[in-house]
Amino acid sequence: MLQSLEIELTKTKKQQPPAEQLGFGNYYTDHMFIMNYEDGKGWNTPRIVPYQPIVLDPAAKVFHYGQTIFEGLKAYKTDDGRVLLFRPHKNIQRMNRSNERLSVPELIIDDAIEALKQLLAVDQNWIPTAPGTSLYIRPFIIATQPQLGVAPSTHYQFIIIMSPVGAYYTEGVNPVKIFVESEYVRSVKGGVGEAKTAGNYAAGLKAQEIAKEKGYSQVLWLDGVHRKYIEEVGSMNVFFKINGIVHTPALNGSILDGVTRNSIIQLLNHWNITVEERPITIEELYEANRKGELEEAFGTGTAAVISPIGELNWQGEVLVINEGRTGELSKKLYDTLTGIQMGKIADPFGWMVEATGIRV
Amino acid sequence: MLQSLEIELTKTKKQQPPAEQLGFGNYYTDHMFIMNYEDGKGWNTPRIVPYQPIVLDPAAKVFHYGQTIFEGLKAYKTDDGRVLLFRPHKNIQRMNRSNERLSVPELIIDDAIEALKQLLAVDQNWIPTAPGTSLYIRPFIIATQPQLGVAPSTHYQFIIIMSPVGAYYTEGVNPVKIFVESEYVRSVKGGVGEAKTAGNYAAGLKAQEIAKEKGYSQVLWLDGVHRKYIEEVGSMNVFFKINGIVHTPALNGSILDGVTRNSIIQLLNHWNITVEERPITIEELYEANRKGELEEAFGTGTAAVISPIGELNWQGEVLVINEGRTGELSKKLYDTLTGIQMGKIADPFGWMVEATGIRV
Ligand SMILES: Cc1ncc(COP(=O)(O)O)c(C=O)c1O
Ligand SMILES: Cc1ncc(COP(=O)(O)O)c(C=O)c1O
Repeated sequence: MLQSLEIELTKTKKQQPPAEQLGFGNYYTDHMFIMNYEDGKGWNTPRIVPYQPIVLDPAAKVFHYGQTIFEGLKAYKTDDGRVLLFRPHKNIQRMNRSNERLSVPELIIDDAIEALKQLLAVDQNWIPTAPGTSLYIRPFIIATQPQLGVAPSTHYQFIIIMSPVGAYYTEGVNPVKIFVESEYVRSVKGGVGEAKTAGNYAAGLKAQEIAKEKGYSQVLWLDGVHRKYIEEVGSMNVFFKINGIVHTPALNGSILDGVTRNSIIQLLNHWNITVEERPITIEELYEANRKGELEEAFGTGTAAVISPIGELNWQGEVLVINEGRTGELSKKLYDTLTGIQMGKIADPFGWMVEATGIRV
Repeated sequence: MLQSLEIELTKTKKQQPPAEQLGFGNYYTDHMFIMNYEDGKGWNTPRIVPYQPIVLDPAAKVFHYGQTIFEGLKAYKTDDGRVLLFRPHKNIQRMNRSNERLSVPELIIDDAIEALKQLLAVDQNWIPTAPGTSLYIRPFIIATQPQLGVAPSTHYQFIIIMSPVGAYYTEGVNPVKIFVESEYVRSVKGGVGEAKTAGNYAAGLKAQEIAKEKGYSQVLWLDGVHRKYIEEVGSMNVFFKINGIVHTPALNGSILDGVTRNSIIQLLNHWNITVEERPITIEELYEANRKGELEEAFGTGTAAVISPIGELNWQGEVLVINEGRTGELSKKLYDTLTGIQMGKIADPFGWMVEATGIRV
C-alpha cells in the first residue's frame, strides 16, 4: 500500500536550530507523514507533506473521548553518515497492541516501518550529530470521526512527526530524585496502563506537578490495588540492583513494555548478570537499603536511555542510593546502549535498522 | 471579560435536519464559541464564530497526552418559546473540578455561563421542539501547546459546540440490558475517574464493544481494587430500589458526580423516599433479588435522563429486574424530571435557568 505514497516537498525549508537550543520536543522537521483510515476502506492515501497543522471538526472523537495512540523512538546519524533506527519494529508492534486495547484499527507493520524510513529519507538532514543528540520520532493515531457518541471512531489519521532533540545530559549522566506517589494512581490492572495512549499521561500530570514543587523530577507510581508494588516512573521503566542481582517489575498489564527495558534485560543476560522480572514492593527496597544491599537504581526509556536514580522519597522517608552518584552498572549500560545506537560499537543483537536506499 | 465577546455570524446557514433523523451528536448548529488561554495572560479573546474546523499543530499536547476536559448539558425550548438550561452552574463547577484534577486552568464560572447563553441566543432556532428532543451542549477544553514534553500545557482553547439531539426513547421509556464487567476496569481511586476527561472514555471502549457483541447495550463498571463494588454505567450513574429504599453508589473519587444523579437524590428526598449513598456490592444486588427485594434499577445521565435497567449479566448469571419492565418509580422520576426540564411542570428547586435578553 505504501507503493502509492505521494510526496510533496516543502518550498520553504525551516532554519535548523543549533544543537544547544534543542531541548526535547520543541522543534519539528520540514515534513510529516499522514495516512487516513476509514471503516470498510482500511488505511489509505499515504503521503509525505510539508509539516503543517491538522484540521479537524470540533466534534472529532479525539478531542472528547481520547481515542489516540502514540509511540516514541529515535534515529541517529553515524559518523560515516548512515541513518540508524533503534528497534523500530518493537515500537510498531507495541503500537498495534495499544491499538487493540483502545479499539483502534491495527497498522500493517511493514507499511508503518516503510513510512518511518521514507520520512527519514526526506528529512535526514534534520538528524543532529552533536554528542547526545538524536532525532526523536513520534508516530501517532487520532480518531477523527465528528460524532459525539461514546463508541470507537470510524475514521482515523496515522501521523508521523519528527523532532531533533538535545542531549538529555548536558554535563554527563546525572542521577535524578524521584518522589514515590502514595495518593494518586496512574493505572490499574484491567485498565489501559500497558497501552501508550494519551489518557495515561493526562492522569499523571497532577502528581508530577506536586512532585516538582517538592524538588523531585519525576514520580514513581505504585500499583492502584495494594499501593505497595512498584510500577514505573512517568516515562521510564525502573530497575534495581540488589546484592548483585538486577530486579525490575514484571509486565503486569498496568505498566508499559518498554523497548529500552527489553534491551537492558537482553544486555544484562548477555553479560551473565541475573535479572529478575517480578512484583517488587516499595518496602522491600527500603529494607534492602537498610541492609546495605541496594546498590543501584535506574530508569530506562527512549528519551534518557538510562537515568540513574539517586534518591527516593516515600511518605517522607528519604532513601539515598549509591550516595546519590551514578552506579557502575548504570554507567556501563548507558555507554553500551548509546554506543550501539550511535553505531560506535558492535550491535550483537541486530537492533539497529538502517534506513537506506530511499533517498528522494 | 465576556464583555469583549466578538460575534461573527455565518453567511451560509445550514439546513436543519428533521427531528426523526437527529440521533445523538450527529449534527451541529451554525455557530460555536471559542476562547483562548495562555499562561500569564489567562483566558482571552472570547468569540462566537461560524461552526468551523479546529486547526492545531500536530504536536499539540491534546493529541499526545490527552489533557482535555468536557461537559455535557442540555437546553430546551418551552411551548411558550422560552429557552431553558438545566442546572448549567453544576456543569461548569464540575468542569472546574475536572480542570483542577487534570492541571488545566480553571474557568471563570460566570463567563462560561454567559458564553453558553450567548451562543444559545445566536443559535436558539436550532433547539428542536418535537417530544423528547433537545439541544445538547458540549463545552470542552483542549491543550494546544505544540510541545512533546509530558507536562501541563501553557496554551488551551475552551470551545462550545451544540448539537440538536433526537428523542432517546422513540417508543416510550424502555429498559436496557447491562453487562457487569469483570475483566476491564474504567478507573480506580487515586485516578481520574471523577473527572470528565477524554481518557476515561477511551479506557471504556473495549469492554463496551465486547458487551455489545453479547447483546448488552452498556457496561456496568465494578471498582478496580476489590472488583465487587458497583461504580457506574458507561455514561450514567446507577440507582437501585431495594425494599422501598433507593440506593446509589457513594461518590468515592472514581465515579462521576452526575448532575442527574444529584437531581434525582433531591427529588427523592422531596418525595420523602429514603436514599442511601454508600458502597454497594454486586453480590448484594443478586442477594436482594433472590429475596425478592430488588424492585427497580435505573441509570441517570444527561442523554437519557432516566434509563431503566431490565437485566444485568454478571459472570454469566442473568438477573432480570421487575420482569424487564420499567418500574413505577423510574417512570415517575423520568416524567417529573423531563417535565421540569421542558418547563411543563413546576420547578420547586430553581433548576432551570432561562437564557433571555441576549438576542442578537
Ligand atoms: C509510561 C512509560 N513507561 C515506560 C517508558 C519507556 O519505554 P521505552 O523504553 O519504549 O521508551 C515510556 C516511554 O516510552 C513510557 O511512556
Ligand atoms: C462517566 C459518566 N457517569 C455519569 C454520567 C452522568 O452525569 P450527568 O447526569 O451529569 O450527565 C456521565 C454523563 O455525563 C458520565 O459520562
